[in-house]
Amino acid sequence: MTYQTIEVERRDGVLILRQNRPDKLNCRNSQMYVEIMAALDLASHDDNVAVVVLTGTGKFFCAGMDFANDPEVAYTAQAWDDETTVRIKQALPKRQSDDVTTWLPVKFIETFIEFDKPLIGAVNGPAIGEGFSSLLHCDVIYCTEATYFWAPFARAGVAPEFCSTLLLEARLGKSLAAATLYLARRINAQEAQNVGFVVDILPSSEDFLTRVVALIQDGLALSGPPELRASTLTRFKQLVYPRQTKAALLAQCHAEFELIRDRAISGETNTVQSYYQSELPS
Amino acid sequence: MTYQTIEVERRDGVLILRQNRPDKLNCRNSQMYVEIMAALDLASHDDNVAVVVLTGTGKFFCAGMDFANDPEVAYTAQAWDDETTVRIKQALPKRQSDDVTTWLPVKFIETFIEFDKPLIGAVNGPAIGEGFSSLLHCDVIYCTEATYFWAPFARAGVAPEFCSTLLLEARLGKSLAAATLYLARRINAQEAQNVGFVVDILPSSEDFLTRVVALIQDGLALSGPPELRASTLTRFKQLVYPRQTKAALLAQCHAEFELIRDRAISGETNTVQSYYQSELPS
Amino acid sequence: MTYQTIEVERRDGVLILRQNRPDKLNCRNSQMYVEIMAALDLASHDDNVAVVVLTGTGKFFCAGMDFANDPEVAYTAQAWDDETTVRIKQALPKRQSDDVTTWLPVKFIETFIEFDKPLIGAVNGPAIGEGFSSLLHCDVIYCTEATYFWAPFARAGVAPEFCSTLLLEARLGKSLAAATLYLARRINAQEAQNVGFVVDILPSSEDFLTRVVALIQDGLALSGPPELRASTLTRFKQLVYPRQTKAALLAQCHAEFELIRDRAISGETNTVQSYYQSELPS
Repeated sequence: MTYQTIEVERRDGVLILRQNRPDKLNCRNSQMYVEIMAALDLASHDDNVAVVVLTGTGKFFCAGMDFANDPEVAYTAQAWDDETTVRIKQALPKRQSDDVTTWLPVKFIETFIEFDKPLIGAVNGPAIGEGFSSLLHCDVIYCTEATYFWAPFARAGVAPEFCSTLLLEARLGKSLAAATLYLARRINAQEAQNVGFVVDILPSSEDFLTRVVALIQDGLALSGPPELRASTLTRFKQLVYPRQTKAALLAQCHAEFELIRDRAISGETNTVQSYYQSELPS
Repeated sequence: MTYQTIEVERRDGVLILRQNRPDKLNCRNSQMYVEIMAALDLASHDDNVAVVVLTGTGKFFCAGMDFANDPEVAYTAQAWDDETTVRIKQALPKRQSDDVTTWLPVKFIETFIEFDKPLIGAVNGPAIGEGFSSLLHCDVIYCTEATYFWAPFARAGVAPEFCSTLLLEARLGKSLAAATLYLARRINAQEAQNVGFVVDILPSSEDFLTRVVALIQDGLALSGPPELRASTLTRFKQLVYPRQTKAALLAQCHAEFELIRDRAISGETNTVQSYYQSELPS
Repeated sequence: MTYQTIEVERRDGVLILRQNRPDKLNCRNSQMYVEIMAALDLASHDDNVAVVVLTGTGKFFCAGMDFANDPEVAYTAQAWDDETTVRIKQALPKRQSDDVTTWLPVKFIETFIEFDKPLIGAVNGPAIGEGFSSLLHCDVIYCTEATYFWAPFARAGVAPEFCSTLLLEARLGKSLAAATLYLARRINAQEAQNVGFVVDILPSSEDFLTRVVALIQDGLALSGPPELRASTLTRFKQLVYPRQTKAALLAQCHAEFELIRDRAISGETNTVQSYYQSELPS
């Protein structure tokens, strides 16, 4: 498969999925959504893939969603009627079910929630907005010294998304989660490791990804013969992550997007965005 | 409203609620209970208040409950028959429903559980007993270097209260929570930050509160135009903190107070208090 | 009672249960299972015991299960028909109910889950495999500087056990738990303390246990008169650890052992063990 917004590479049992719009700080447009979902779907069915690593090209991991001036959005809104999409549209409140800026992100994060192999974040630099919140669905997270995590949802006039109202507290503890949600606090790499969000901090250098992959391969070497690794780790993850947990996450994700839509429809989102003339800092 | 045991001050969207009995280490008597509840109720309905900060005057944050020689207790026991109080009395076991040392603390902590805006602890010094356990209901917690957290429930002949049998583990991790509950372990500021209980440690100086408020105001500046901040953060907190979570907390709080009453009625509390002739260290 | 694989000693209200097969790195054979269960049962009914400390002789805490060449297993398989064993056998899937390598470990960990007094891990050195996962059922954990925690379940061709698919995440945070489960990551003492798994790290010296017991006794001194300590702490633990929590843990434990049996029956366990010719490092 040919991708335009991501690069996909396999090193033995490790599939690397690299967000690749460095001039846009790897912000995700609708095409990147579609391509990441397609790559995860292929990885899920590939017996040679034991784990998937999500990373980014350049200095940023991902600085959020970027649906502005995105010609794909209109296309996408029309074109999708596969079984999963139809189900998601039916599950959403009426007014959201036709809105691609709602059902496409819901479908995107559902892909993360349902992904059945270990998903590893190799955070090469700042993770902002949904770049941060999507990491909440990664199992293991590594980052560089230069990484920070920042989710100023209120500043963007939206609401916490991707289950962050549930998972930030689970992964950061209540104090840091609340400071993120209510006070837009930035979290640096050391703070993230102190609370267990990040398992290891590596230097911010060109070989960051190579070093992360080496750590992962050292781990996989202890997972039995290569042909058994994918099925073994999938079965371990099934025990960790039962169906009812996934259902609760999806329901929370829907509730969050309902608030996002409420704010958009009521005009609050526009009011907030007008209030801030400046851009997000880089 | 005029308060005698607390001081209330608003700085832009931040309401500061300062426990103000420094000669009693800010121990809470029944009047302080009533005044904190009243101030939180007003804050909840004031659109100009985005967040509330709980702090203390002097060297201590709060050293626990102080109902001894408290003339207000008898008064309070008679006077309250508002709807919430009647409901709480009905929910409690029969023998507790007329006891102001039970239903008043239950009502007090219910006010924390139900409070719908971000509640921030600015812990200016040691937090002991319920001074510690009430912080479990704060969203974000800051403290000074000199702060320690200590809850020697067994030493007082009572039992863990204010949902501490549920929330200590959620906020400190199981090891430190169990050491607190079973071994009366003190937790210093650094340890509290390591496990994510405290988000930032600031120097123990006169301007501690000013610095905390500045951090909060920096955060609020990213929450949209001032007139939208209170409603935005309230809606975020609703997502984090759904009704069923609040109900579970209340039920745990009732169970804890039932054990406290059991110990009082059986004479254990007196036995323990006689065993310790010495006072709590200051 | 006379024990052959453990040593039991009481110092005031503290019962010390020391795993004592140092030449086998304190690996647990079926006899040690039986003896630990017997000692915990006695401790539960002894009013003079307020807390139990689990530790090990020599350099290791416990390096896992050791049922190989264990003559007791065959004996044990026949001899047990007490009420608890019969109930556990009935709860297990048909094919596991007659297998002593399943029902005996399930019974063993059920003893930990049901133990009603504070259980304290004094981890004198590396805790590997079930030596690590059984610590997930301890309330407070202390360790030496030389301790590491390591659970390479996939390397042994088995599956995570003793509720580790639930409790590793609860006690280590998701990132470190997932790195343990999927990548066999070792956790050193400092990392364990950072995420709150361990409450205090002490030097690796001969008097480690003495120092841990002194810390515990300092705590117990704040638990009321000696004759009330056991009952007080038991009632505190009941509030922390309600029946439904115990039931959920048992169900998870059963599901894990079902995967272990699946892998054994399908031949995967043998395949994995043949793949690794080398021994577990010491």
